Amino acid sequence: MNIPKSNYPRIIIIGGGFAGISLAKELSKKEVQVLLIDKNNYHTFQPLLYQVSTGGLEPDSIAYPIRKILKEYPNFYFRLANVEQILPETNTLISSIGTIDYDYLVLATGSETNFFGNSEIEKYGMVMKSIPESLNLRSLILENFEQALLTDDLHQRDALMNFVIVGGGPTGVELAGALAEIKKGILPKDYPDLDTRRVQINLIQSGDRILKEMSEKASQKAEDFLEALGVQIWKNTRVKSYDGKIVSTATELRFEAATFIWAAGVQGTVIKGLDAEEIRTKSKRIRVNEFNQVLGHKNIFAIGDIAAMALEAYPSGHPMMAQPAMQQGRNLGQNLVRLLAQKPLKPFHYKDKGSMATVGRNKAVVDLKHYKFQGIFAWYVWTFVHLFFLIGFRNRMIVFINWVYNYIRFDREARLIIRPYKRDYSRFR
Amino acid sequence: MNIPKSNYPRIIIIGGGFAGISLAKELSKKEVQVLLIDKNNYHTFQPLLYQVSTGGLEPDSIAYPIRKILKEYPNFYFRLANVEQILPETNTLISSIGTIDYDYLVLATGSETNFFGNSEIEKYGMVMKSIPESLNLRSLILENFEQALLTDDLHQRDALMNFVIVGGGPTGVELAGALAEIKKGILPKDYPDLDTRRVQINLIQSGDRILKEMSEKASQKAEDFLEALGVQIWKNTRVKSYDGKIVSTATELRFEAATFIWAAGVQGTVIKGLDAEEIRTKSKRIRVNEFNQVLGHKNIFAIGDIAAMALEAYPSGHPMMAQPAMQQGRNLGQNLVRLLAQKPLKPFHYKDKGSMATVGRNKAVVDLKHYKFQGIFAWYVWTFVHLFFLIGFRNRMIVFINWVYNYIRFDREARLIIRPYKRDYSRFR
Repeated sequence: MNIPKSNYPRIIIIGGGFAGISLAKELSKKEVQVLLIDKNNYHTFQPLLYQVSTGGLEPDSIAYPIRKILKEYPNFYFRLANVEQILPETNTLISSIGTIDYDYLVLATGSETNFFGNSEIEKYGMVMKSIPESLNLRSLILENFEQALLTDDLHQRDALMNFVIVGGGPTGVELAGALAEIKKGILPKDYPDLDTRRVQINLIQSGDRILKEMSEKASQKAEDFLEALGVQIWKNTRVKSYDGKIVSTATELRFEAATFIWAAGVQGTVIKGLDAEEIRTKSKRIRVNEFNQVLGHKNIFAIGDIAAMALEAYPSGHPMMAQPAMQQGRNLGQNLVRLLAQKPLKPFHYKDKGSMATVGRNKAVVDLKHYKFQGIFAWYVWTFVHLFFLIGFRNRMIVFINWVYNYIRFDREARLIIRPYKRDYSRFR
Repeated sequence: MNIPKSNYPRIIIIGGGFAGISLAKELSKKEVQVLLIDKNNYHTFQPLLYQVSTGGLEPDSIAYPIRKILKEYPNFYFRLANVEQILPETNTLISSIGTIDYDYLVLATGSETNFFGNSEIEKYGMVMKSIPESLNLRSLILENFEQALLTDDLHQRDALMNFVIVGGGPTGVELAGALAEIKKGILPKDYPDLDTRRVQINLIQSGDRILKEMSEKASQKAEDFLEALGVQIWKNTRVKSYDGKIVSTATELRFEAATFIWAAGVQGTVIKGLDAEEIRTKSKRIRVNEFNQVLGHKNIFAIGDIAAMALEAYPSGHPMMAQPAMQQGRNLGQNLVRLLAQKPLKPFHYKDKGSMATVGRNKAVVDLKHYKFQGIFAWYVWTFVHLFFLIGFRNRMIVFINWVYNYIRFDREARLIIRPYKRDYSRFR
C-alpha cells in the first residue's frame, strides 16, 4: 500500500456514505492524513434508490464520485477496496489491496439487508440497498411485463404482474406508491395488449401500521394515500417464505408473484475482527459510547448505521437514517481534532430534524418535532429536502429536471433494461 | 405468440435502431399491422456511446424506450426477443419467444464489431457498439487508474495508464479526444498521488489518414487537434494481436497496455436463413435492390447498416451511418404503402447531408457537400445536430445540461464504476 508516510496521524475511514463523507468534510484542512476506503468509487444517495428501480431517475444522477468530493482536500487519499479484517492489536487492517496501518480507524460501513437467516428469501427476493441492486429490480419489473405478454394462461400472467413488497418502512411505502403510479400512468400505454388493470401491488407489514417510526397520523395518511392508488396493504402479516413463485405467510394468506421485494429489515455491515459479541447488538450494529468510540477500543470509532449509541431516548441506537449519520460524522470530526489537541471530547447530541416519506405525486407525509403534515405541501417539502441533500450541483439539476418532466408528463422515461436480470421464468409458463 | 390476427398485412421489423424506428414512424396510421422486434427494449443513440464510456453522459439519456415511441400508433406491437432464424419459404421467423408469421419482413438489424477472425482480440479487446459495452469500458478505464495506484513498479503502472485505440474512424477519433481531455482536466485532480502526465493515448490507423471517409482537410485538421491534445497517432500501422497486455503490429512497433479498444471494423448483423453467399457482401451486409428489397425475396427488405445497395456512387453500399438508415426507413415505409396499393415503387436516393466528427472541446470537423469547415463553429454544428437527432425531449434536455455543465466546469461527473468490469490484473503486478 503506497500511501505516503506523513507526520500527521493517519485516520482511516471505511465507507463513503453519509457518515463517512460528512466526517471527511469535517476533517478537511486539519492536520491529519485521511484515507477513505470504499468498495465503490462513488457515494450513493440511498433515499432515492427506489426512483432508480422504478425508472424515474438515472442511476448516475444519485451517485457522486468520491474522488471528486475529496480532491479539494490536501492529505486526503481514496482507495477502492474491500476491507476484509481489522486487527486492533496492531492497528492494521487487511484489505483486498493489502495491509494498511492506521492511527485512528472509523467504521462507517453502513447497513445491509437483513434476511433473518432465511436463505430462500435471500436467494429469490429482490433488495434495494445499492445502485446495481436497484437496476436489477428495474430490469426485473420490466422483464416481467414482457414475459406476461408471452403467456395466454391468465393465472400465470397474473403472477407475473403481481408485486409483493415486504416491509412497510419508507422504502416499501415509496416503492409501492411508485409502482402504483406506473400501473396507472405508464403501463396502459406501454402495454396496450395486456390488461394492466390486473397488475397487483401488495404491501405486507408485520406490525399493525406502516411507517411505524413515524407518527400515527403519518401512518394513517400514508395508508389512505396508498389505498387510493390501489395498493393492497396487509398488516399484522408475517412472511414465512418465498420460493421464487409462492409467497407464504404465517396465516392462510398466500400470493403467487414473480416479483418479491424484501425491504423488511437491515443490519449493520460488520467487518471481521470487530465483531465480538459484547460490542454487537442484535441487529449487528456496533456499540459505541457517546463519542462514537467503539467499546473497548480507544482509537476505533463507528458512525452512522453501523453505530449503536444506546441512549435513553434511543435504547437500540439512533434511527438508521441519513441525519444521525451526517451529524455523527460532523461531531466525530470535531472530536478527533480535539483528541489530537488533547482537549476533552464533546458527546454526541442528535438533533432530530424529523422524518418524511413520499407516496406519490403530491402525496407525502412529514413529521417535524412540533408540526406534522401530509399531502401536497408535505410533498413539496420532501422534494425540496431531497434535492438539497443530494451531493453536487449537476446531480441536483438533473434530478430536478427529471422530476419536473415526470410531474408534467406523468412519465418515467428510464424504463430501460440495460443489463437484463435474466430471471428463470420456467415456473411462470 | 399472441399477436392478434388482423385484416391488415403484418410487417415485421427486426431492430429498433435508426432504420427500424424511422420505418415504424413512417408506417404509423397506415393500414398495416407492425411488429417491431428488438433484443433491447430501448433505442440506442449510438453516435454518443463514446461519451458514456468517458463519463460525460449518463447511459439512460442516450437510450429511449421503444414502447414509448410506438405507443401513439395503433396496430403496433413490440416484442423483446432475439430472432434466431428466418424461414423465407414459409414466411415465418423463429425467435426466442416462439415462431411468428409475417407478410413482409424488414431486416434492420444494424451492424456489429468485426474482429476479422482474430479471436484473441475478440477476447481481450473492448468494443463500444452498445450501452452495456460502453459501460464496461467506462468501468475498465476507471479501474485501471485505481489499479495503477497499487503498484510501485513504474513499468506496470505505465502499462495500466496506456490506452490503445485501434481504428481512426469517428469512434476512435472521438474516444481518443475524450480520453485526452480527461487526462488533462480530470486525472490530475482525481489522482493527485499518480503522475498522470504519463498517461498515454495511442490511436492506431491502418491507412494513411484518420477519418478516411471524410475530406483530406478534415483528416488533417482532426490529426492536428488530436496531436495538440497529446494523442499519439500511428498511421499505416496494422495491429496483429493483443494478448491482454502486449499489442503487436505488423512492424516493430509494440505497446504494453491494459486497455485496448477495437474500433477498426464493423460488419452486418446477419440472421440465419438469410445469409446465403450470393446475397451477402464481404462485410456481411445483405445485397438489396434500389427498393431495399433483398435479392431473390419479394417480401423481404433490408435497411440501414445491414443493407448493401450497390450503386455507382456507393459500390459497396451506403455509409454505415444514421442518415442513410433513416432515409431508407422513410423511403421503404412509403414504398410498402405503395406496394399494398399496387402502385409502382420509388427507388431510394440518398441525400448526403455530410458527415462530421468531434475531437473535443471547441474542436470538430464538418464536411458538407459544398462547404467544409473545422474548429469551434464545426463543434457548435456537431453539438446542435446531435441534440436535434436525439429522440425525446427529456433526453435532449438532460444531454444539453450535461454538456453545458461539462463545458463550463471542464468536468465529466459520471466517472462511476457501477458494475465493475472485473478484469484480471495479474499480469500488471
